[in-house]
Amino acid sequence: MNNFVLELLGTMFLVLLGDGVVANVVLKGTKGNNSGWIVITTGWAMAVGVNAFIFTASGAHFNPALTIGLATIGQFAWADVPLYIAAQMIGGFLGACLVYVQYKDHFNQSDPDSQLGVFATGPAIRNTVTNLLCEIIATFFLVFAILGIGQTEMAPGLSVLGVIAIIWVIGICLGGTTGYAINPARDLAPRIAHAVLPLKGKRDSDWGYAWIPVVGPIVGAIIAAQLFNWLVCSGIFR
Amino acid sequence: MNNFVLELLGTMFLVLLGDGVVANVVLKGTKGNNSGWIVITTGWAMAVGVNAFIFTASGAHFNPALTIGLATIGQFAWADVPLYIAAQMIGGFLGACLVYVQYKDHFNQSDPDSQLGVFATGPAIRNTVTNLLCEIIATFFLVFAILGIGQTEMAPGLSVLGVIAIIWVIGICLGGTTGYAINPARDLAPRIAHAVLPLKGKRDSDWGYAWIPVVGPIVGAIIAAQLFNWLVCSGIFR
Amino acid sequence: MNNFVLELLGTMFLVLLGDGVVANVVLKGTKGNNSGWIVITTGWAMAVGVNAFIFTASGAHFNPALTIGLATIGQFAWADVPLYIAAQMIGGFLGACLVYVQYKDHFNQSDPDSQLGVFATGPAIRNTVTNLLCEIIATFFLVFAILGIGQTEMAPGLSVLGVIAIIWVIGICLGGTTGYAINPARDLAPRIAHAVLPLKGKRDSDWGYAWIPVVGPIVGAIIAAQLFNWLVCSGIFR
Amino acid sequence: MNNFVLELLGTMFLVLLGDGVVANVVLKGTKGNNSGWIVITTGWAMAVGVNAFIFTASGAHFNPALTIGLATIGQFAWADVPLYIAAQMIGGFLGACLVYVQYKDHFNQSDPDSQLGVFATGPAIRNTVTNLLCEIIATFFLVFAILGIGQTEMAPGLSVLGVIAIIWVIGICLGGTTGYAINPARDLAPRIAHAVLPLKGKRDSDWGYAWIPVVGPIVGAIIAAQLFNWLVCSGIFR
Repeated sequence: MNNFVLELLGTMFLVLLGDGVVANVVLKGTKGNNSGWIVITTGWAMAVGVNAFIFTASGAHFNPALTIGLATIGQFAWADVPLYIAAQMIGGFLGACLVYVQYKDHFNQSDPDSQLGVFATGPAIRNTVTNLLCEIIATFFLVFAILGIGQTEMAPGLSVLGVIAIIWVIGICLGGTTGYAINPARDLAPRIAHAVLPLKGKRDSDWGYAWIPVVGPIVGAIIAAQLFNWLVCSGIFR
Repeated sequence: MNNFVLELLGTMFLVLLGDGVVANVVLKGTKGNNSGWIVITTGWAMAVGVNAFIFTASGAHFNPALTIGLATIGQFAWADVPLYIAAQMIGGFLGACLVYVQYKDHFNQSDPDSQLGVFATGPAIRNTVTNLLCEIIATFFLVFAILGIGQTEMAPGLSVLGVIAIIWVIGICLGGTTGYAINPARDLAPRIAHAVLPLKGKRDSDWGYAWIPVVGPIVGAIIAAQLFNWLVCSGIFR
Repeated sequence: MNNFVLELLGTMFLVLLGDGVVANVVLKGTKGNNSGWIVITTGWAMAVGVNAFIFTASGAHFNPALTIGLATIGQFAWADVPLYIAAQMIGGFLGACLVYVQYKDHFNQSDPDSQLGVFATGPAIRNTVTNLLCEIIATFFLVFAILGIGQTEMAPGLSVLGVIAIIWVIGICLGGTTGYAINPARDLAPRIAHAVLPLKGKRDSDWGYAWIPVVGPIVGAIIAAQLFNWLVCSGIFR
Repeated sequence: MNNFVLELLGTMFLVLLGDGVVANVVLKGTKGNNSGWIVITTGWAMAVGVNAFIFTASGAHFNPALTIGLATIGQFAWADVPLYIAAQMIGGFLGACLVYVQYKDHFNQSDPDSQLGVFATGPAIRNTVTNLLCEIIATFFLVFAILGIGQTEMAPGLSVLGVIAIIWVIGICLGGTTGYAINPARDLAPRIAHAVLPLKGKRDSDWGYAWIPVVGPIVGAIIAAQLFNWLVCSGIFR
């Protein structure tokens, strides 16, 4: 139950900050308006990193795909999976509501596509097969890298800097196509918030695309966990 | 008394550097003119971080809201609060005077709004309720995160890198609305300097807004400290 | 054989991410389109760093020039050099194929020069002598710095942050001329992929230039290793 | 004598990289052309940091002002000062020559002011008194901060990350006026190289300004060292 609260709070702060940087860059009249990809990717990387520093006690998953991936290789108890996912989804929803509070005046002045873009990812070029592949590849690397840096001896706390680098590099290098959801709690939960919140002049929540940033990350995470596990079991990773 | 000097020097350097980056980006004719939000947020994050590296001995508060928040949960002696706040306000004032010296020729060529923007924050969209909420939320996260990373075991000195990440992420993700004062000594003290300094063609110091970056941060800091304390006392944070 | 797999995987991920950031910046319609040199250099630096965190077990070379340079001073067994280079070249080729999958829809909309630019470096100003010198100087510093930071006592894992700084600084400061290949597996292997992959409307793979990012890095690496070795043997580096 | 070689090499690499980023940003036709203040400041910060990682054995001064400042408070032997300064000046000159080799084709296409700007700093607004004050203030903070972070207990190697943050923050926040020389070996030595090198169509080396980035840094360094020493002797820094 403690971990439920920690995962909920961590995911709430993650989405407040991560969706917050998108709001700052895409909404009208903000101080960071149109400040570019370096700002978006740095914001998300630091958002994950800071919360990983704070919430190490619960494992700092903040991501159902990671939780499921770890469970498939015995690094997390299946019995706790529903609890963690519930915490992450509730946290993601509440974080999205806080973003709405923080940027309310700017949401009211922005166009419907920009409003939705704060809450949920959308593809640069819509193509079910390639969009799904993009989310699979990006989340594959996310989970493989998180497991992989556990292989290296590090001074206490330093692995969080590794996590920051992982999120940064995924956003910068692989995020150019679908906007790197790589996390259902970061995409589906705020999308639900978008549907519920009283945004002035809002559009639909693009439900036709909503399954891709859920299924893609989960598939990618499972493949990554399996490959990592095989590398360890076969003695290739020492 | 030693801590008085250290807090004063630390806050002075913090404001010299932090207001310095705003001067570099917004004043006319500088080498960093119009270089964007990534420069402003990186500057403030490193400004806090470097001074936190130097002035660990006094706790490196540099911020009355943090000092008060810590006092409300017994992590700082109430008896020392006035001393710390005095040091921070004097330091903030002196730092703002140094910024004036450093960028004097550029202040003289810039418009009144840019001049004021170097010293004090102002909202992108003026709205008392939402502006106040923004400062409360941003400072809430600041103080919660600073207390939270204390929960994680880290190699000596590494927590300062955590502090850099916290300031960076707040600026990038939450600073787009009110410019993230999150610190009365960073906003009120330089605002007084703006009123006092002989800036060529200066405007009024926007005193109508001045209470928001004082009250908001203090309220946010107290809420954060209380929540953190409750999480620790209830055993959720181990 | 374990190291073969690790070097292959590491170089594959390195090229997926590194070529990925170029794709994100130069291909048409991406979310990071035209986001500039800071994005490209940060992407490559983090790409090397993250994989160095994961694949320390094999030494995390990912670069035939580094492997050969280390071999010339007895820090790597000559007998293993062919194995490592084979792993790096295969990994680089596979990573380039993954970039094609990740950015396929954007490749199809982009001009032939941009397509090639994702896979292989090309000089800003074509000049055999100076282009070769640029690659020699940049790789010289790469290998000298990697060997050099081994001289400094560091907390476990911290040297990877040093590696990130090295790649970042080379890209930012020395990459403006030839695009800092500094690694045959990062240039020749993806160039072969460019020749093989079914890119829509692609141009030739600029084979006339292909030898420079192979020979230059190897020459630079050998000079650096020799100088470093001499400094150590003569007692100048303690 | 060993330290002579190390300081010479370290300053040579520092200027190759630091002047290299300026070349990349200001010279015509480079890949980083016009990429802005974030690139320049990140380049210089990483250039100092990487060389500080490599050349810790000699103290990694790379800067006559720092060497003199340390000598005035007994942290460096006066007898070694001439040797260090000679190494730094020779290194700075050689580094500038390497920059010329690296960016030769781009120098040949650029205007005279951009050429000089790679080698030597120049003020945004020419004003002897304020320009001198700017260099004094910036170097004061440099030396005070370097001495100050020595007060904090840190895991081995972490202090270099502190040095990176110091250089970054000075450039971003205080560099907007005179371009933060803060180091005679970084300004005077490359300026001499500018006078000597066969740059196509070059202008004069602006000798009228040349004394400011020499005298300012030395004065600032001495004041910082004295203040720091007084804080330690009086027990304020523990």
